[in-house]
Amino acid sequence: MLTAEPTTSGAGKILRTELARADAGETSVAQRMEELFLFMADHACHLTKTIIPSLEGGAIVLSDRYTDSTAAYQGVTLRNVLPDPVQWIRSLYEPWNLPPDRTLLFVLDPRIALQRMQSRRGREKFERFEFLQSVDENFRMLAALEPERFVLIDAGQPQETVAEDALSAILELLSRGPFRK
Amino acid sequence: MLTAEPTTSGAGKILRTELARADAGETSVAQRMEELFLFMADHACHLTKTIIPSLEGGAIVLSDRYTDSTAAYQGVTLRNVLPDPVQWIRSLYEPWNLPPDRTLLFVLDPRIALQRMQSRRGREKFERFEFLQSVDENFRMLAALEPERFVLIDAGQPQETVAEDALSAILELLSRGPFRK
Repeated sequence: MLTAEPTTSGAGKILRTELARADAGETSVAQRMEELFLFMADHACHLTKTIIPSLEGGAIVLSDRYTDSTAAYQGVTLRNVLPDPVQWIRSLYEPWNLPPDRTLLFVLDPRIALQRMQSRRGREKFERFEFLQSVDENFRMLAALEPERFVLIDAGQPQETVAEDALSAILELLSRGPFRK
Repeated sequence: MLTAEPTTSGAGKILRTELARADAGETSVAQRMEELFLFMADHACHLTKTIIPSLEGGAIVLSDRYTDSTAAYQGVTLRNVLPDPVQWIRSLYEPWNLPPDRTLLFVLDPRIALQRMQSRRGREKFERFEFLQSVDENFRMLAALEPERFVLIDAGQPQETVAEDALSAILELLSRGPFRK
């Protein structure tokens, strides 16, 4: 089952519309909190509608972004609001989230990431250098907290090598089985 | 400025559709979390779009339901999920919420509340006796935690007396001024 966040739930649609705005502008604390809680609501819906039923049906679920992305990105938007936003967000997921068996983190210098984005149309509001640099730091911190779950993949390599590394990480996990029902 | 939660925001509309269902049914933990976070997102939007601009414009804002209602109601839906859901929900609002100057709590035996509802069409999913009894307990606990903010009004009295008590509580607050800008 290939899936992605934000989903097409009601909350996900609000998020996708908002994220597509190129101009981030100045946002209030309440607006940044609204965004965080919409990501949480969307993730909860994703679990209910897609992930849990798929796992129960015996599927392997591969999600493009998950709760770590919310901790990493909203951990930046909320950094002047809370003393430790990444940990705070993690603690909000903790009582109810389904942690992934494995998380692939594609690591890339934000400068190169932005260069690559030149070739596609549109820019999302988070796609600015300083912001992405802080997101990158948060992702590395999350990976350091749970080294057994994260596999870091050097996304600066040629596309085929990145794909091979990702496939290896997945095959290595599958070779371990059995999986949770 | 007279306002109410859930609002007509994107998150509020999802909530109103969901709440209008008469049949609560069995819901998963993730579904109950989704509902909580939609209420939080809707409240954040309410602050941004209505409450903060109104206060800045010098208005007195009166909201039909606020974050205490989320703590009281979702404190019931999450009671088997978290050790102390009401406190957990309060802690999630704490870093960013704008607490009201005064909160009027209309106290009514849930049995009488349900009798009164007979006369109107439709029943929301939370309007069942055991559920309302637990909500009532949560509201009383919230009021006990902040006695200086809450005014308890006996809603079992005749309508005119209830209105008079509410008006007195508001006028007493207004006579105190000045208010926060």
